[in-house]
Amino acid sequence: MSRPKPIEYADAAPQVRVVFDDIKRSRRVDDVNNFWKYLANDPALLKRTWASVKDVMADGALSPLVKELLYVAVSVTNGCEYCIASHTASARKAGMTDAMFGELLAVVGMANETNRLANGYRVPVDQAFG
Amino acid sequence: MSRPKPIEYADAAPQVRVVFDDIKRSRRVDDVNNFWKYLANDPALLKRTWASVKDVMADGALSPLVKELLYVAVSVTNGCEYCIASHTASARKAGMTDAMFGELLAVVGMANETNRLANGYRVPVDQAFG
Amino acid sequence: MSRPKPIEYADAAPQVRVVFDDIKRSRRVDDVNNFWKYLANDPALLKRTWASVKDVMADGALSPLVKELLYVAVSVTNGCEYCIASHTASARKAGMTDAMFGELLAVVGMANETNRLANGYRVPVDQAFG
Amino acid sequence: MSRPKPIEYADAAPQVRVVFDDIKRSRRVDDVNNFWKYLANDPALLKRTWASVKDVMADGALSPLVKELLYVAVSVTNGCEYCIASHTASARKAGMTDAMFGELLAVVGMANETNRLANGYRVPVDQAFG
Amino acid sequence: MSRPKPIEYADAAPQVRVVFDDIKRSRRVDDVNNFWKYLANDPALLKRTWASVKDVMADGALSPLVKELLYVAVSVTNGCEYCIASHTASARKAGMTDAMFGELLAVVGMANETNRLANGYRVPVDQAFG
Amino acid sequence: MSRPKPIEYADAAPQVRVVFDDIKRSRRVDDVNNFWKYLANDPALLKRTWASVKDVMADGALSPLVKELLYVAVSVTNGCEYCIASHTASARKAGMTDAMFGELLAVVGMANETNRLANGYRVPVDQAFG
Repeated sequence: MSRPKPIEYADAAPQVRVVFDDIKRSRRVDDVNNFWKYLANDPALLKRTWASVKDVMADGALSPLVKELLYVAVSVTNGCEYCIASHTASARKAGMTDAMFGELLAVVGMANETNRLANGYRVPVDQAFG
Repeated sequence: MSRPKPIEYADAAPQVRVVFDDIKRSRRVDDVNNFWKYLANDPALLKRTWASVKDVMADGALSPLVKELLYVAVSVTNGCEYCIASHTASARKAGMTDAMFGELLAVVGMANETNRLANGYRVPVDQAFG
Repeated sequence: MSRPKPIEYADAAPQVRVVFDDIKRSRRVDDVNNFWKYLANDPALLKRTWASVKDVMADGALSPLVKELLYVAVSVTNGCEYCIASHTASARKAGMTDAMFGELLAVVGMANETNRLANGYRVPVDQAFG
Repeated sequence: MSRPKPIEYADAAPQVRVVFDDIKRSRRVDDVNNFWKYLANDPALLKRTWASVKDVMADGALSPLVKELLYVAVSVTNGCEYCIASHTASARKAGMTDAMFGELLAVVGMANETNRLANGYRVPVDQAFG
Repeated sequence: MSRPKPIEYADAAPQVRVVFDDIKRSRRVDDVNNFWKYLANDPALLKRTWASVKDVMADGALSPLVKELLYVAVSVTNGCEYCIASHTASARKAGMTDAMFGELLAVVGMANETNRLANGYRVPVDQAFG
Repeated sequence: MSRPKPIEYADAAPQVRVVFDDIKRSRRVDDVNNFWKYLANDPALLKRTWASVKDVMADGALSPLVKELLYVAVSVTNGCEYCIASHTASARKAGMTDAMFGELLAVVGMANETNRLANGYRVPVDQAFG
């Protein structure tokens, strides 16, 4: 009946340790964040989620910094406190300055506002947008 | 009782035309999008929204392209079809390629997924994140 | 496999007709809206939902007009097009003017914006608010 | 100006006690959860909500376990911490195992992801789906 | 990497103090709420947000009380705890009684419910609604 | 500038055809749904999403039917029309009856309602829930 518990490395099954080791190596950190310790309650979910995050957040047509900014934008829109805290930290590691953070929040706030104005007036999509 | 109607330039009050003229000049377009034509039903709302959008979306610590990507990320998360259509178009004008669009959606999808995994496991914020 | 269908009065079971009759009498309309025709696919859901709506939306400490405005505010925030359309119509019947509608959307837009600014800065609740 | 307070049984009005008694009897518990103690601030809301919950969550075409899983899925999607905590507990009482909980979260995460991919690409509904 | 910090008046730049002074004067309070102290990390965002809030929440076609009720309705729908706490307090200052608060939540709950019933049955907008 | 387009099998690159072939084989269908044709604009996203969906939705501690019901519950909560339409169809294929669909929507509606009542009253998590 009780709340889920985090799985620490010392208590983790081998297939969980493999993922934890890869996270630590990839991110050059001594321990994984709470998020991964909780996902470890379901080793298959842990493995798949880490594989996807590693793949999706890698450098590509968009830089890791831009990807972290997008992650924060979604998390702020959804009101996920854990994700806001952790990805704001990641964004800062990837180079986000205070000025960038302020502008990010301004855009996120504005978009959330205008999304509702468009809903409220039931604005039809312009033909030019297809 | 009927649905709100767009206000065309020819039928617009002077204070609406001032805003429409500024949008057309700033964006170098011949006509404003439907969004602005509907907001014109409330001239004060139109004026304030345009002033904020112009200010928030201007080049700054973040580029106009990154700001448009953030706008799309929020609109996709909220499921606002009008805003997805119009800001995808703006993002493309600002330089978004097909590859960027694909990666943007991959990050937005992933963030929406992991936001719920963090919620579901009720993961506490790591002390390192403050 | 196909999409749910509306139940018209002529084809409705007796326990559905009882609800339809009460809606028509209470609202002084000749036919019920599509919403009720679809809910009629589950007569228990139809009956319970109508009883709750009738109870919740009745005149009380808040007027029917204010209640309709609140309904529109929620529906716009959630992006439910059907509900925006139907409750904007109900609000107009209850006395909502164009000016009220414009101000309603301005407040809804602003609240959606500042909700995200509070999320993004992770603002702690002031002690004065308990 | 202060935060709403819970109503304890000892301080409750007769019409609140009637509901509390029915909750305790139906659920075989010694005291009601905080949720009901707060709703008791509005006895009409308390009474209607409990009647609906009892009706909706009862065994039917879907089992109580499946209904609790659905409740958790919605609460996780909305990020309602209280509801996640209380309905995870109810789901466990109704038979949810750790493995089921992990799979539930995997589906909820995936659905939240693919909802946004469908939004982002503005995928039109297939004709086969009506 | 650390969490954003509030800016107190004593440490605030002149352009922040101007806004803080205006908030204190307009609201007849001795200090501004945490929300404004955090926005002060981005003085341009602070200034624009305060100007919009002052404008949007002023007496107009809708009263300040109705506007605060709408603000609470949006914040409850989005699950923004800070905004629920602060705007419930503002609504009480503007005259919201316990009975009004109970009815407000009943409408917000009902609207969130019926929004999903309309989504789930994919109810088409009635022709009468345009 | 224009809207994303679906990729048909005849025009698809080899790595897209491999995924399409696997979807058709696994689901015993002659053609893939629009969702996959749009994701094919980004072959890496297509491949990863299909691999995850196949894995997550497979029979496990929860049956495919229960998983489809959960998918519909999330999609209805988010208001994603495409996903509601496609996963309602999948749920029916997996055995969902009309009665189950009605009860599913009743639970989803109720959960969306009570999530907001818990938010609005700021109900603290019971100690018993951890």
